[in-house]
Amino acid sequence: MPVGTPIAATAEQLASVKYDDHGLAAAIIQEHGTGDVLMLGWVNADTLRQTLETGRMTFWSRSRQEVWVKGETSGDRMYLREAFYDCDGDALLFVVEQEGRGACHTGDHSCFHSAFGSAAPDA
Amino acid sequence: MPVGTPIAATAEQLASVKYDDHGLAAAIIQEHGTGDVLMLGWVNADTLRQTLETGRMTFWSRSRQEVWVKGETSGDRMYLREAFYDCDGDALLFVVEQEGRGACHTGDHSCFHSAFGSAAPDA
Repeated sequence: MPVGTPIAATAEQLASVKYDDHGLAAAIIQEHGTGDVLMLGWVNADTLRQTLETGRMTFWSRSRQEVWVKGETSGDRMYLREAFYDCDGDALLFVVEQEGRGACHTGDHSCFHSAFGSAAPDA
Repeated sequence: MPVGTPIAATAEQLASVKYDDHGLAAAIIQEHGTGDVLMLGWVNADTLRQTLETGRMTFWSRSRQEVWVKGETSGDRMYLREAFYDCDGDALLFVVEQEGRGACHTGDHSCFHSAFGSAAPDA
């Protein structure tokens, strides 16, 4: 069973993150080992801190307007391995170990399971 | 020299993309072959269509409020290989071949070159 890896971010690192008008930063989730991109979520300052402290991916749900500990309901938890912020501080990359069926509420491994063009190879 | 791969998206696929209040959708860029996540950019309906038609990553620059053909100035072009949209249509994943030094304006290979926690391993 996977275990979350808490990450001790410095105050300077946390201050590098820039949030949008809604107080959110984009959070790309990549699977440890496979490198698969699983989903894009959003974090605010509180859920970023909670993610790093607990080692469990914790988002801000824009649709429900609430804290969302990924997998709390579905069992498909995400355990943190590494976390990065980008050059202008408004996008984050989390490398995780995915538990259960996958990242997507459809049961798919990745939320990015629909390809442009593949339905029309002869188009 | 890499060549862009145009992708013939169907009208239905293009209609699956949902844009935010600013007419934008998040665009994750992943490197073909390595699986490295290189950057997060933004596209609107026009630059998404342009990207798919030309096979060259073309963003909407939020800071400059203009069309941004990646690498046009720097030479660090991104050639499209595959493109995906996520389960709720508001995030996109582009798999690209990266030309030149890398994706980041700093000269780094990836814009996500800063790790949380790594500067303070004993914290």
